[in-house]
Amino acid sequence: MAASSDRSDRFLRACRREPVDVTPIWFMRQAGRCLPEYRAVRERHGMFEIMANAELTAEVTRQPVDRLGVDAAILFSDIVLPLSAIGVDVEIKPGVGPVFADPFRTAADLERLRPLEPDTDMAPVLDAVRSLSADLPVPLIGFAGAPFTVASYFVEGGPSRDYAKTKSLMRAEPALWSALLDRLADLAIASLRAQVGAGAAAIQLFDSWAGALAPEDYRGRVMPASARIFAALTDLDVPRIHFGVGTGELLADFGAAGADVVGVDWRIPMDEARRRVGEGYALQGNLDPALCTAPWSVVETAAQDVLDRVGGAPGHVFNLGHGVLPETDPDVLTQLVDFVHANG
Amino acid sequence: MAASSDRSDRFLRACRREPVDVTPIWFMRQAGRCLPEYRAVRERHGMFEIMANAELTAEVTRQPVDRLGVDAAILFSDIVLPLSAIGVDVEIKPGVGPVFADPFRTAADLERLRPLEPDTDMAPVLDAVRSLSADLPVPLIGFAGAPFTVASYFVEGGPSRDYAKTKSLMRAEPALWSALLDRLADLAIASLRAQVGAGAAAIQLFDSWAGALAPEDYRGRVMPASARIFAALTDLDVPRIHFGVGTGELLADFGAAGADVVGVDWRIPMDEARRRVGEGYALQGNLDPALCTAPWSVVETAAQDVLDRVGGAPGHVFNLGHGVLPETDPDVLTQLVDFVHANG
Repeated sequence: MAASSDRSDRFLRACRREPVDVTPIWFMRQAGRCLPEYRAVRERHGMFEIMANAELTAEVTRQPVDRLGVDAAILFSDIVLPLSAIGVDVEIKPGVGPVFADPFRTAADLERLRPLEPDTDMAPVLDAVRSLSADLPVPLIGFAGAPFTVASYFVEGGPSRDYAKTKSLMRAEPALWSALLDRLADLAIASLRAQVGAGAAAIQLFDSWAGALAPEDYRGRVMPASARIFAALTDLDVPRIHFGVGTGELLADFGAAGADVVGVDWRIPMDEARRRVGEGYALQGNLDPALCTAPWSVVETAAQDVLDRVGGAPGHVFNLGHGVLPETDPDVLTQLVDFVHANG
Repeated sequence: MAASSDRSDRFLRACRREPVDVTPIWFMRQAGRCLPEYRAVRERHGMFEIMANAELTAEVTRQPVDRLGVDAAILFSDIVLPLSAIGVDVEIKPGVGPVFADPFRTAADLERLRPLEPDTDMAPVLDAVRSLSADLPVPLIGFAGAPFTVASYFVEGGPSRDYAKTKSLMRAEPALWSALLDRLADLAIASLRAQVGAGAAAIQLFDSWAGALAPEDYRGRVMPASARIFAALTDLDVPRIHFGVGTGELLADFGAAGADVVGVDWRIPMDEARRRVGEGYALQGNLDPALCTAPWSVVETAAQDVLDRVGGAPGHVFNLGHGVLPETDPDVLTQLVDFVHANG
């Protein structure tokens, strides 16, 4: 795969299915609890405190770039940030996740969802994006939560195993559901356009929990709002990545929604993912993050299997199938970056 | 589907893909927190206290049969009971699940897994099975946890989102993993044979979390132990049901492991499940339990869709795609039983 690319652009080239010198790699949640330097920052600052401070955001975003040698950075933030930025009361509880004081329940709650004005509502975030984009040796990925996944937290009031309230609302009150998803799509569009405007070189839409849906529900009641987000970014000419967990039944839809790159979790081998997604998309994935807690020989075998199943075809961004687990040894991730660069 | 069957045998006939008068229905976790009479018992007795008492076990097992009008009962128990019965220290924490004082870590832990002697180790359970089998108006389903799912609790020490320790052990120490699964398979075989010997008319093997595995890991490192369980029950001539959540990629394997009935969760429509499993198996499922918390019109539409996708083909046991959620209104379940009997 020799080509005139290097660390500064191999990620973007792979997203565009162009030849690369070596397979690019980054990790979802690479800026996070597996890094001691991150934990040191978190001992002194809360999540929203970091997100409200451009310097802290930039520091934490940069940590894995320096330590691990990855080929892309991803903005340190959270998918509920836009909701918080327009005044919805949400906190991120350690070991739990986003928790809403007043979950979304009725049409009256729509009025809590005013349009996002990024320049004022997300000023520190955009300052961080500007400084990172100027300084980082690799492209910066901006991101947003997809309407379904954000709605699931907002409707349930926090993380859920079964999404009973969310699915009930979706089926029982389709007009309200659709209005909610539209508002959340608008937030995502405004946030993503602003991140790209400030310098983000790619974006990822996280529909992490869409795999909990029956495929028909995804296609009929969720995908249109996500597709509207991708469509609203077309003129920006940055790669658009679309990711969720357990989306084996939805991979073709995740591409067709308007993505350039489809994220794949470890449940679908990459060769099968390619068959499902079809040509015309890059793929991102798909090493099981659980295996990164095993001895290196296990990681190596599993990483080689991912590379073998891709078979050197253009358009592969190496990543885990979901976020880095907090108990992961960062040295294993560094070793994995080196391995993929040497063998991919 | 008119046929000479009734409530006493339509479940078993459907498991055997024989004609039935109406589609049989039961619910995973039908004996559980959605029923006020169950919660009343639990206010006075702990989980293991119920399982150690034949009368309480029988009472709780029977509650949904009387109230909901389902076509099968399932023994009230837990998949960790055989481990507890041979002396492994495990408790079931309310709102959490099984928690092990000393998780499985090394080869030395294998010595804690002596063979199960059901007549002495599980005497109250078998007494309950005997009395229920004699008295119930419907067949009684016995059950066990499949080796992977039981191992996941035992290795992690409790419920897990990512199964990192389990997968790490599986890949890093294949001989120890295989020995652990063999012991757990032996426990399941002994427990299931004893339950059938005491009168259980069918059995279900719960590999609830197998869907967290890459298909290759399931086939190579998990399925053989489950297949050995099914093979060891062949002479008993009772229907064998095989169920897990998120097993869309594994449905054919779940049949080929030796089951007669394959459980399907809501992520795979029943017509697609039939294509994947092939002929020669009955199917059980697959209404999303989350939808049973919605207004009746939502439940009705979703239940009709399940029936439409089955299309009246023989060999369908109506069930949810996973267990009843605690917040479910039991009246909705009664209505659902009536609906399936009237329309299925």
